[in-house]
Amino acid sequence: MSGPAEVRAAIRAGELDGPTAALAPGFSQANLVVLPEADAFDFLRFCVANPRPCPILEVLEPGSVEPVVTAPGADLRTDLPRYRVYEHGELVDEPAQVAWRDDLVAFLIGCSFTFERALLAAGLPVRHLQQDVNVPMYRTTLACRPAGRFSGPMVVSMRPMTRTQAVHAARITARFTSAHGAPLHVGDPSALGIAALDAPDYGDPVEIHPGEVPVFWACGVTPQAVAAASRPELMITHAPGHMFVTDLDEGDRPNG
Amino acid sequence: MSGPAEVRAAIRAGELDGPTAALAPGFSQANLVVLPEADAFDFLRFCVANPRPCPILEVLEPGSVEPVVTAPGADLRTDLPRYRVYEHGELVDEPAQVAWRDDLVAFLIGCSFTFERALLAAGLPVRHLQQDVNVPMYRTTLACRPAGRFSGPMVVSMRPMTRTQAVHAARITARFTSAHGAPLHVGDPSALGIAALDAPDYGDPVEIHPGEVPVFWACGVTPQAVAAASRPELMITHAPGHMFVTDLDEGDRPNG
Repeated sequence: MSGPAEVRAAIRAGELDGPTAALAPGFSQANLVVLPEADAFDFLRFCVANPRPCPILEVLEPGSVEPVVTAPGADLRTDLPRYRVYEHGELVDEPAQVAWRDDLVAFLIGCSFTFERALLAAGLPVRHLQQDVNVPMYRTTLACRPAGRFSGPMVVSMRPMTRTQAVHAARITARFTSAHGAPLHVGDPSALGIAALDAPDYGDPVEIHPGEVPVFWACGVTPQAVAAASRPELMITHAPGHMFVTDLDEGDRPNG
Repeated sequence: MSGPAEVRAAIRAGELDGPTAALAPGFSQANLVVLPEADAFDFLRFCVANPRPCPILEVLEPGSVEPVVTAPGADLRTDLPRYRVYEHGELVDEPAQVAWRDDLVAFLIGCSFTFERALLAAGLPVRHLQQDVNVPMYRTTLACRPAGRFSGPMVVSMRPMTRTQAVHAARITARFTSAHGAPLHVGDPSALGIAALDAPDYGDPVEIHPGEVPVFWACGVTPQAVAAASRPELMITHAPGHMFVTDLDEGDRPNG
């Protein structure tokens, strides 16, 4: 078991390059969205208006790469295992490190990996960890509240479990308000407009055992999907599942 | 007992012009800060970084005066009993209505009046209501986390009660996370840098009875005090204690 600084150092050195689920257990993980300052106010308003998919952990000063609140000393250009670079909404690269500009603003947004330690500690299944794959994520027909140029559907992550386990998981995750909180939905993918559980829009499919139902949580891929749809000149994000590991305790609200 | 729409209509008609404490019990009240769009991103970052004094209820689209999330149909130019207008950080007017511009962005921020119904229902004293005066508010030496051009000290509101009552009040107000939550401090004004309880920086002094101690909560006057210190070209706020009454249930987090 390594702490967050050790995990980030290993990532920076190229020794870790996969999804970050189960790394640095007990610490908050974060989604990354980086946008030019011209888009930053509308995007921050979008996050504030949609706190379930977009719980804000930290907004950096324009041009800054060091998250002084959630991980002092870290460098957002190198400390995530995989990035996605979009130009005018098109994915153009998936590098292991990224360049920066003075007008770029980085947003760190809570991630459901943060509550998986608590699920495991309660004896609940986390199937993508059992299968050693990335968590499955799906675009839904649930509309986010728009803000300025940003609007679009919510993305959810899914973990299968029994209905009894789902109730237990809801109680546990409800207190993780900076990591998407309680499930949005239990049981019926079609209620969210999801056609095929075995074909996630992001990440990998997982097995659903007899007696289990899919349990869906709001997902921090939402803001990057919404931002990409608005075709900003430049956007940098983490690759889905390849998160930024912060120094923040899993139960903390930053600045709270 | 009137609902929020009736209270706003009476204010708009000039029939109510004092502090709004105890009006529309059960509904959330809000602090107002209005700034030019050029200052809005830094100010929103300031609020996000300081959620105790600055819990955001709604950020309106630039130029808009209707809070479509928290009070559809309301008009922020007329529906507060008293405003303050600042130019370059100087208070220039305290009108009952204000003009608007296309580049103005309105921020609605949670207010501790929201939890006073729950304090009264629990048999706890709310002294400014007993004395029919405005709540006392004080600048402290607690620094907010800076963001861009915005930085400065936290402002607190104060309600005297016994230490036993203070514990009870802490338990009740902790769940009002969009209305400043639990107290910041109980008992020692000098710990916050407050020299004289009988000379508040905003509002009115209240009596402290034998056996009572001052109980301090983060206050939504903080953002207007901080914004004024940065001397924006124009800023419009509510007059302290003269809040915007929303349609939001007292216990709700908007968009939550």
